[in-house]
Amino acid sequence: MNIGKLYIIAAPSGAGKTSLVKAMVESTPHVRVSVSHTTRGIRPGEQDGVNYHFTSVDGFQDMLEKNMFLEHAEVFGNYYGTSAHWVREQLNKGEDVILEIDWQGAQQVRSLMPDAVSIFILPPSLEALRERLIGRATDDLSIIERRMSQAVSEMSHYGEFQYLVINDEFDLALRDLQTIIRSQRLSINWMQHYKEDLIKGLLG
Amino acid sequence: MNIGKLYIIAAPSGAGKTSLVKAMVESTPHVRVSVSHTTRGIRPGEQDGVNYHFTSVDGFQDMLEKNMFLEHAEVFGNYYGTSAHWVREQLNKGEDVILEIDWQGAQQVRSLMPDAVSIFILPPSLEALRERLIGRATDDLSIIERRMSQAVSEMSHYGEFQYLVINDEFDLALRDLQTIIRSQRLSINWMQHYKEDLIKGLLG
Repeated sequence: MNIGKLYIIAAPSGAGKTSLVKAMVESTPHVRVSVSHTTRGIRPGEQDGVNYHFTSVDGFQDMLEKNMFLEHAEVFGNYYGTSAHWVREQLNKGEDVILEIDWQGAQQVRSLMPDAVSIFILPPSLEALRERLIGRATDDLSIIERRMSQAVSEMSHYGEFQYLVINDEFDLALRDLQTIIRSQRLSINWMQHYKEDLIKGLLG
Repeated sequence: MNIGKLYIIAAPSGAGKTSLVKAMVESTPHVRVSVSHTTRGIRPGEQDGVNYHFTSVDGFQDMLEKNMFLEHAEVFGNYYGTSAHWVREQLNKGEDVILEIDWQGAQQVRSLMPDAVSIFILPPSLEALRERLIGRATDDLSIIERRMSQAVSEMSHYGEFQYLVINDEFDLALRDLQTIIRSQRLSINWMQHYKEDLIKGLLG
């Protein structure tokens, strides 16, 4: 039995997912973020094994044929995938694992790991989302609008997730994510494992 | 559809359930505790409608025949029951309802209301439980020991509940209960209802 918990966190681009997950991992013991494999080129400032595991197309196809991915996707001609082995290894060590993936990856993971807990992060409004997308880059308006419509398309799948967090104020959204993880650590399965001695002391 | 959430909270006598539930209701908006019907006599300091709805045996039997209880039990010759009507009325108004019942009542409620969230509260050790039972009354040792064995019997059902809270330090146990309720208020059903306007603003 896995003793760590698998979390799927999805959000439209611009909802603040990456910053929230980073803050959550830093503030919560025994939580790790899965590092995806990708065939896209490494960008300045990125580190292999930290931002991604950078892989050749042949290497990726080989892993794919060997069913080594929990989920994978092609985005703008590049492949992305989550290593099933690494995730299972962490869970078996008692570490919680967060997958930052999109709704399609979430569907793949759910079918393989039905105990995964899935969370969708929404921005408070379309205006806030647009401002964040504009603030982030110097792209021209047509690119912003394309990102907006991609965001709306991603958000249309929010109902497939178990929990919903609104990222209006960062600290409150972070507290919400922490609340979800803490509640999972009060679930009977978790407690039976981690409070085994206490329970034995009560019930023999 | 019910929009409030039903919570079942069980614990052995002496685990601190009543104090924890009281503190939780006082610190959390939209949470109410169900007041049971009982046929036992009113005790000094008790108020009808506050501690219990005090009912005649005939009145209770009548409600029982009309299926008006979500759960009921006979304890030491007295009947106790939870009014299904009152609970459903609160849930439909958007109030969360807490039922303080035992494992047998929990089984009855689960079969009628499968969406109920169930929580079991454990003491940190048998020694702590014994101290609390001794501290509470001037009963002689044989009564304490009988209560202890009743407590162990109740605790043996902890595994039928979804969440487990250890009441070692009161404030931490209270925080755990609050975490469980807050996480339920981040669930997709709750959010879809209470953040309907925000979601419409995002997705039309």
